[in-house]
Amino acid sequence: MNFASDNIVGASAPVLQALVQANSGALPAYGNDEITKRVKARFADIFEHEVAVHLVTTGTAANALALASAVPPWGLCVCHQEGHVIDDECGAPEFFMHGAKLVGLPGVGGKLAADDVASYLKSLPKAVKQMPPKALSISQVTECGLVYSLDEIKALGAVCREHGLSFHMDGARFVNALVSLDCTPAEMTWKQGVDILSFGATKNGCLMAEAIVVFNPALAEALDYRAKRAGQVVSKGRIISAQFEGYFADDHWYANARHANRMAKLLSEGLSGIPGVRLGWPTQANEVFPIVPKAIDQALKATGAHYHAWTDVSLPADERVGPDEALIRLVTSFATTEAEVRQVVDIARSALSRQAAE
Amino acid sequence: MNFASDNIVGASAPVLQALVQANSGALPAYGNDEITKRVKARFADIFEHEVAVHLVTTGTAANALALASAVPPWGLCVCHQEGHVIDDECGAPEFFMHGAKLVGLPGVGGKLAADDVASYLKSLPKAVKQMPPKALSISQVTECGLVYSLDEIKALGAVCREHGLSFHMDGARFVNALVSLDCTPAEMTWKQGVDILSFGATKNGCLMAEAIVVFNPALAEALDYRAKRAGQVVSKGRIISAQFEGYFADDHWYANARHANRMAKLLSEGLSGIPGVRLGWPTQANEVFPIVPKAIDQALKATGAHYHAWTDVSLPADERVGPDEALIRLVTSFATTEAEVRQVVDIARSALSRQAAE
Amino acid sequence: MNFASDNIVGASAPVLQALVQANSGALPAYGNDEITKRVKARFADIFEHEVAVHLVTTGTAANALALASAVPPWGLCVCHQEGHVIDDECGAPEFFMHGAKLVGLPGVGGKLAADDVASYLKSLPKAVKQMPPKALSISQVTECGLVYSLDEIKALGAVCREHGLSFHMDGARFVNALVSLDCTPAEMTWKQGVDILSFGATKNGCLMAEAIVVFNPALAEALDYRAKRAGQVVSKGRIISAQFEGYFADDHWYANARHANRMAKLLSEGLSGIPGVRLGWPTQANEVFPIVPKAIDQALKATGAHYHAWTDVSLPADERVGPDEALIRLVTSFATTEAEVRQVVDIARSALSRQAAE
Amino acid sequence: MNFASDNIVGASAPVLQALVQANSGALPAYGNDEITKRVKARFADIFEHEVAVHLVTTGTAANALALASAVPPWGLCVCHQEGHVIDDECGAPEFFMHGAKLVGLPGVGGKLAADDVASYLKSLPKAVKQMPPKALSISQVTECGLVYSLDEIKALGAVCREHGLSFHMDGARFVNALVSLDCTPAEMTWKQGVDILSFGATKNGCLMAEAIVVFNPALAEALDYRAKRAGQVVSKGRIISAQFEGYFADDHWYANARHANRMAKLLSEGLSGIPGVRLGWPTQANEVFPIVPKAIDQALKATGAHYHAWTDVSLPADERVGPDEALIRLVTSFATTEAEVRQVVDIARSALSRQAAE
Repeated sequence: MNFASDNIVGASAPVLQALVQANSGALPAYGNDEITKRVKARFADIFEHEVAVHLVTTGTAANALALASAVPPWGLCVCHQEGHVIDDECGAPEFFMHGAKLVGLPGVGGKLAADDVASYLKSLPKAVKQMPPKALSISQVTECGLVYSLDEIKALGAVCREHGLSFHMDGARFVNALVSLDCTPAEMTWKQGVDILSFGATKNGCLMAEAIVVFNPALAEALDYRAKRAGQVVSKGRIISAQFEGYFADDHWYANARHANRMAKLLSEGLSGIPGVRLGWPTQANEVFPIVPKAIDQALKATGAHYHAWTDVSLPADERVGPDEALIRLVTSFATTEAEVRQVVDIARSALSRQAAE
Repeated sequence: MNFASDNIVGASAPVLQALVQANSGALPAYGNDEITKRVKARFADIFEHEVAVHLVTTGTAANALALASAVPPWGLCVCHQEGHVIDDECGAPEFFMHGAKLVGLPGVGGKLAADDVASYLKSLPKAVKQMPPKALSISQVTECGLVYSLDEIKALGAVCREHGLSFHMDGARFVNALVSLDCTPAEMTWKQGVDILSFGATKNGCLMAEAIVVFNPALAEALDYRAKRAGQVVSKGRIISAQFEGYFADDHWYANARHANRMAKLLSEGLSGIPGVRLGWPTQANEVFPIVPKAIDQALKATGAHYHAWTDVSLPADERVGPDEALIRLVTSFATTEAEVRQVVDIARSALSRQAAE
Repeated sequence: MNFASDNIVGASAPVLQALVQANSGALPAYGNDEITKRVKARFADIFEHEVAVHLVTTGTAANALALASAVPPWGLCVCHQEGHVIDDECGAPEFFMHGAKLVGLPGVGGKLAADDVASYLKSLPKAVKQMPPKALSISQVTECGLVYSLDEIKALGAVCREHGLSFHMDGARFVNALVSLDCTPAEMTWKQGVDILSFGATKNGCLMAEAIVVFNPALAEALDYRAKRAGQVVSKGRIISAQFEGYFADDHWYANARHANRMAKLLSEGLSGIPGVRLGWPTQANEVFPIVPKAIDQALKATGAHYHAWTDVSLPADERVGPDEALIRLVTSFATTEAEVRQVVDIARSALSRQAAE
Repeated sequence: MNFASDNIVGASAPVLQALVQANSGALPAYGNDEITKRVKARFADIFEHEVAVHLVTTGTAANALALASAVPPWGLCVCHQEGHVIDDECGAPEFFMHGAKLVGLPGVGGKLAADDVASYLKSLPKAVKQMPPKALSISQVTECGLVYSLDEIKALGAVCREHGLSFHMDGARFVNALVSLDCTPAEMTWKQGVDILSFGATKNGCLMAEAIVVFNPALAEALDYRAKRAGQVVSKGRIISAQFEGYFADDHWYANARHANRMAKLLSEGLSGIPGVRLGWPTQANEVFPIVPKAIDQALKATGAHYHAWTDVSLPADERVGPDEALIRLVTSFATTEAEVRQVVDIARSALSRQAAE
């Protein structure tokens, strides 16, 4: 029962197989190989748009490089106050952006509302002491497991255009969101104004495969140099590109995400059917955020279940976690089984019955 | 006949197998897994020394992070004028060091002589306009395929201590040098004063496995943070650590290097036996630098052989490349076959005979 | 009636005279002159402590250099959310610190409470994704015109020591605080644990004279290089050092600050005696923050008085500015006259009478 | 007899007077004052061109900010190997450019030849490992006291345009060059393709007054923010702008430079008339570089004359300094007197006679 994250398992079988197959033979180094070229062309197909694509080794690097291409060293980047970029990267964006600043705004469920962003931008003094806002970064899926609707993205895109900001999407769980919205990659990105995307594949079946996808050619120019000087151009490029090839073949990435989302749904329904359990936020992708009586938290831990406690800072004030409750995060993946899900739900239900009996 | 580099082939079989085996099951993310822990302990055994080890994805990152830990933003790092760090990284060290400066000194065969380094250091003005020298970086093997002797490293180490410099070794072809010198890893590094090492494994049988090995605890402190904020902490850490496990098992890394060095020796002997061919520098590891009549260069290219032209800037003035000659670099690897080597030599010899006949 | 800031007038007479006198004759450049040496020795006397002193051209540079010496590129610096360093410098600290991060905490009156800082530090996750806290920066006088008591500084110093943070004081209005507390420079700084100080003189009678005063030798080492490479080592050093000499002579700096504080007191008493006027924060140095009926604000502006509107974010929730009120900041200086003060009070009082009469 | 530099004396009388006059009264801070506005307009008149002007406190800052506006963090800036920017700034350009690299090319007399620059640019590999060249920086006057002719500047400007480089001129001794060439400011800058200029005034009569003058609007955009975050926006802006006002009034700057150049000419003629003395480079502005018998060097030092030894690296190989010679630099300024010049020449001549007599 390991629901700690979707990065605790290895690659799914087709991805690993593609990697093994690509291992043989001589290929040009530094991404000049045929596999990488094919994968880049595939991205253009998938997004129905000319794109510049950079394959990198971590989500941290994807986000930090993407933001560095959009924000000059003296600029501001607006994000959610719980956003991965501001909270979990040990300052990677600040390093890659050469000291530009991230500003975290509040928002329920990890979402930024277009009106709030616009109000913030309007409130900034027009003075040289004020770093000028240059980009907006959102997470799709959010840190609270929610999925921005197409309309919500569109509204944020409009704010960006009005204020001259570049629009970045952190798509660490990109396809989980696609499956949730049942839309195309194009609809979830450039059609709503997204300029640059961190496309995550590691959490959904790869071992290490992340990409920066650039829709706005103005942001693409320097990324080759930036990636090289960041140590993100691997010499045997196939180690990333081959994984992507396996990932995209036969819509394997969709299959993985559908499974993960379905497991999350099952888990969410199972847990929220238990008296005293409520959901912090609805389950829209592959993360479940139940607020459980502490007895359940203790019982799960006692049986060796792995997961993380979570913060309630993005809950509305009147829904905050009570003194006898715990807000936890359970993440499902392509490898999660129904048996694991049932086991968690059973333990939770039993814990409560036992408590009631005492 | 691909002698372009030792990074044009995939992983050797035991390395790939270790990677595939490690793919199964749930493991903690971000390097907190058992495999990574085992590999780090293995490094300590190999070097007979307590070491801090950071597994990273590229040699660029290994070098740049290592130098950043040794050189403050206002410091100088001395290296060879042809060193990879100054010449081939698109400014990665400058980026990671926050604007510190690399100074390239000349030296025959890509080697820095201890006396030359000492003279340079003494020549620097003692004034605040002068960035203070803080580190020395050498390549073992050098860019010209030469191997520093233990005495040469020791002499450089002494210069570093005298002038308060940290001593970095770029070991992109570390074990090729070990095999050449027939010494232990400890003897080639900290026993001669090396403080921090870029340990390359990608070129010698891995797909993507590089490590920073820190002997001097004063340099280790911040590398965890530096690596994370550089996007060099991969989430599924096994993708690197498993390769190292396969690499080290049964001295596989030594076997690979011995083979590569032996192939280079064969190639070197074969080519230098041809009239009109001379060696730019002696063949000490897995790179051969013949200076060939242009006819040979053309014949090799005509048959589809892959290799790079090379610069003669590190040749003594009276040995420079003549107008009818070409200096080329041929790199062998664990995957190079005797048949390939013979084929190159045969083509070269025939080209010359053909030319003589015309 | 110009109460916009204490940087809108030139130098006071003794400072200007010292500058003019120092203009003659040849002196070594780049701070190697006798005047600069005398001034540095004077700082040691004033602070009763060995100090490293760097004369710089702006408060921005003083703060940013001081923080850069205390915070590595991967570190956090804690400050008040309204602090000048985080809010008014266009990211200068982030630039000089190479991407380190400032974290702004709330606190009534622009003050950080030791308990709040300690709680925040304890709340930080112990993980590599978390930039480690390395410094605390406070403003003495605060952005709301308050003066930290010696006990408050001492408590913050203790938190810094416990958590391994360097302690920086932004003393843009240093002597105004000294006069307010009636204590010695030593008592207000290193005796309470302050490691490094931005010593401002421009606002209190100089034209351009700021200093970084380092009490902790560990922070002093690199500041020479940092200042030079920041373009903060002026060639004709006398332009700064001569001002300091005039500033310190005959306790002129104290006289200026006493006058400014007294003018603020007069203004504060005059305004707060008017019905409907209350003080946002008590007047402890040379800034007055009245919350006035809008009629008064309008009358003052109509007569051409210069001052700034201010934010009430650091007021307790139940003291915030009402819809018919305005929070304004009035700053006095060595050049403020009693006549100006009386004029402002008279206009304010009349405005209210007029309004009552209507 | 102080010929150490032109920054060892204070301000000339009209400059100091302008500063004193501007000290009175209240003025808006941070460069929003009337004097600064007038000075900026004056620059446009002087250069017969719309210009963005930034007043800064040091030549280091002027150069580093100018280069930062022209070179992205991953770019190369070409300069002379003895250029101030690469050799005397403790890495300020690298700091402001966020790790971009300076490349120093050789050239006789501190001058870069257009052909040499073009050859270098063509030699750069077209690969992502190669930082792309983005700017050229020259010093007018050069480090060897030479003045680029208009044709030489024009040729360099053409190379810049052809290769997409911005063209920066370090004009620390700008008007000394103008007087030497007898041309207009426009002719020496934008009319030959210069995009951005460091305009020095400190060495020629000010106490501290430097400006960045931007001809190319594309480079101007971010300089406001860059200057602020570099701590280069002084609060009481008049301290710089008033000096410029005095400097420009009645062509005072030209008068100062004419005097300094004339003194250099006198000194140069006097010294080169002594047997055994030759000039390293012809005297074209206000610096004299005699190569003197060591006896003269010793005699001058013995009488307390101040000057610096100089490097002969930019002399042609067959003109290098012999074992019994010394290359020295003597700098004249607005304050140098004919008596001082005669004294130096007399001491030098006597030293030689005395030696001959022995």
